[in-house]
Amino acid sequence: MPTFERMALVDTTLREGEQFATARFSSAQRLAIAEALDAFGVEYIELTSPAASPQSARDLETIARRGLRSRIVTHVRCHLDDVRLAVECGAQGVNMLYATSAQLRQASHGRSLDQIVEEAAAVIAYLKGHAVDIRFSAEDTFRTDLADLLRIYSSVDALGVHRIGLADTVGIATPRQVYDTVAQVRAAVRCDIEFHGHNDAGCAVANAFCALEGGATHIDVTVLGIGERNGIASLGGMVARLATLDQALVARYDLAMLPQIDGMVAEIVGVPIPFDAPISSPYAWHHKAGMHTNAVLNDPRSYEVLDPAAFGRSRTVAVAHRLVGWHAVAERARELGIYLSEAAARQAAARIKAFGDEHELDGAMVDDILYEYAE
Amino acid sequence: MPTFERMALVDTTLREGEQFATARFSSAQRLAIAEALDAFGVEYIELTSPAASPQSARDLETIARRGLRSRIVTHVRCHLDDVRLAVECGAQGVNMLYATSAQLRQASHGRSLDQIVEEAAAVIAYLKGHAVDIRFSAEDTFRTDLADLLRIYSSVDALGVHRIGLADTVGIATPRQVYDTVAQVRAAVRCDIEFHGHNDAGCAVANAFCALEGGATHIDVTVLGIGERNGIASLGGMVARLATLDQALVARYDLAMLPQIDGMVAEIVGVPIPFDAPISSPYAWHHKAGMHTNAVLNDPRSYEVLDPAAFGRSRTVAVAHRLVGWHAVAERARELGIYLSEAAARQAAARIKAFGDEHELDGAMVDDILYEYAE
Repeated sequence: MPTFERMALVDTTLREGEQFATARFSSAQRLAIAEALDAFGVEYIELTSPAASPQSARDLETIARRGLRSRIVTHVRCHLDDVRLAVECGAQGVNMLYATSAQLRQASHGRSLDQIVEEAAAVIAYLKGHAVDIRFSAEDTFRTDLADLLRIYSSVDALGVHRIGLADTVGIATPRQVYDTVAQVRAAVRCDIEFHGHNDAGCAVANAFCALEGGATHIDVTVLGIGERNGIASLGGMVARLATLDQALVARYDLAMLPQIDGMVAEIVGVPIPFDAPISSPYAWHHKAGMHTNAVLNDPRSYEVLDPAAFGRSRTVAVAHRLVGWHAVAERARELGIYLSEAAARQAAARIKAFGDEHELDGAMVDDILYEYAE
Repeated sequence: MPTFERMALVDTTLREGEQFATARFSSAQRLAIAEALDAFGVEYIELTSPAASPQSARDLETIARRGLRSRIVTHVRCHLDDVRLAVECGAQGVNMLYATSAQLRQASHGRSLDQIVEEAAAVIAYLKGHAVDIRFSAEDTFRTDLADLLRIYSSVDALGVHRIGLADTVGIATPRQVYDTVAQVRAAVRCDIEFHGHNDAGCAVANAFCALEGGATHIDVTVLGIGERNGIASLGGMVARLATLDQALVARYDLAMLPQIDGMVAEIVGVPIPFDAPISSPYAWHHKAGMHTNAVLNDPRSYEVLDPAAFGRSRTVAVAHRLVGWHAVAERARELGIYLSEAAARQAAARIKAFGDEHELDGAMVDDILYEYAE
């Protein structure tokens, strides 16, 4: 695996996440989320454009002037009006975007590639006079011709942007396509590379990871993955992905905060944490099938590639179901102070399975069966 | 893109899905799920081992003898006792597994690779006398040495199995690793190749897709992705992934059934459909940010890579929020029979944004504002 030491996470819960159907953050909630993300340790926090509404501008100013360790950036159209407002609000970076695919250029703004580069040049010239990070992203990158992309990225790189962005705006990119495209862009520019990917085809986290492998330096995430439609790569998913491969890399973050940050945002936007979320799912370390529980009781790493304790979580081993194995039954008995022989544990497991076939089972019923084996 | 015409989906909701924390299917529910999956058109349905409990065996027999178009297979240990029982129950295929990684061999069964091949040979010899599909899967494939894998797969291929299986049992594999490993296995065996991948690092759907690209023919999925811990690749995610690239390929399935199948299983196991699920998320085609709604109203394909109508769904365009754009406001006004000039729509949008900054907004409030513009 390549090393990703230069990697930075750009959390955009307060921009992309605000575009999620049920998200409407109050100023106090925006500040609380920014402070939690800062404490967790994300390198960048992206906020909604100050041009979006009067309160958006006020909140950007409040958070940008808060003295957080995370760099506060804002997502703006590549227009002088918008970037001026961003600078006035104290943003430490401007994440500009311009739709570059033929599809979006036609449906959205009608500009040619030459016009886009020309407008970007004027805006970048203005920004060079201010101490802000400059990012230029080609919206809908993966439906844009590669030759067009390389031309635009080379142009803005030469104009002195700090980062260019690749955005899978519609969630169509495939993992190997992302790797290949980023690698080709990497060879064409000197600046940093950011990746932003939607989840319409279920590949947001994987695509973000493949972008890193291809040479991206900055990865956009949101808490739980909230965003337009069904969202983008989740903070927890990205951290889990990296942690399975390089624990030292993610040690820069306060990992034990992750479940509480996920819980806070889930409550604010009124959605449950998805059962399939890495790390924060209530079931992320829940073991059920007999073969699994046996091995996990011998050695947790057998079926766990992440240590739950690193995230302030703990594992659970289910016994009240018909797929239970005798090792898990024996372990539960031990917890009750009952020491079963293998033969007795097998007999108890068979009784639990047969009972579970016919009835709803719960832990108390299992314990009742096990108490019959106490001496 | 390569063509995936030989691709088959192996839905294992009734095996892997049953290992999900809150899943406990009654016999009637198992049958209902099998019939829905059959009507949808999945090529294989995998059930829990008949050795797991008495009712598991009875349900396998009922469903296997039902005359469904889907092939009914069961997931069994590579033991003569278990496969005999599977054959007696009428299973049309046996999906055998054997843990092959050093980690799992130590924590689980303690066998050497030679012993595994030897035991597999005896079981396969028995099965060759019966008209069943034979699959042999190396559990924890991606923590198994490649040389060991190729040796085992070549051996069982020579013994005449119909498929070998690669299983990312612990959810650690990365997309490009899956592609590379499958491609190397593809070059070493003549039989079909199945892939099964967990979601611990958020890459289950992407890994399954990369397996197909590498030469896999059979992909394991469950409804919603339910399974051990936080589950595996979801049926909806896999269908979405393929549909964005090749609509003809997924036309074999009754796509409009997908949301109802997801809804049925969500209700049975008592979990909400994740907000980030492709296709079945309530928000999968929900557009909110001003730039998006403008373009979507011009041309839905601008921000939609899947047609909601193909899945019996429809798009929604949000107007009751402070990120609203004037195009969406004008469109909502038109729905109310109010025809706004651009200037009036921009003015109305500014009022909605300012109001939304300070208050909870709903559609009725937006409509009240718009009615003020009616002549």
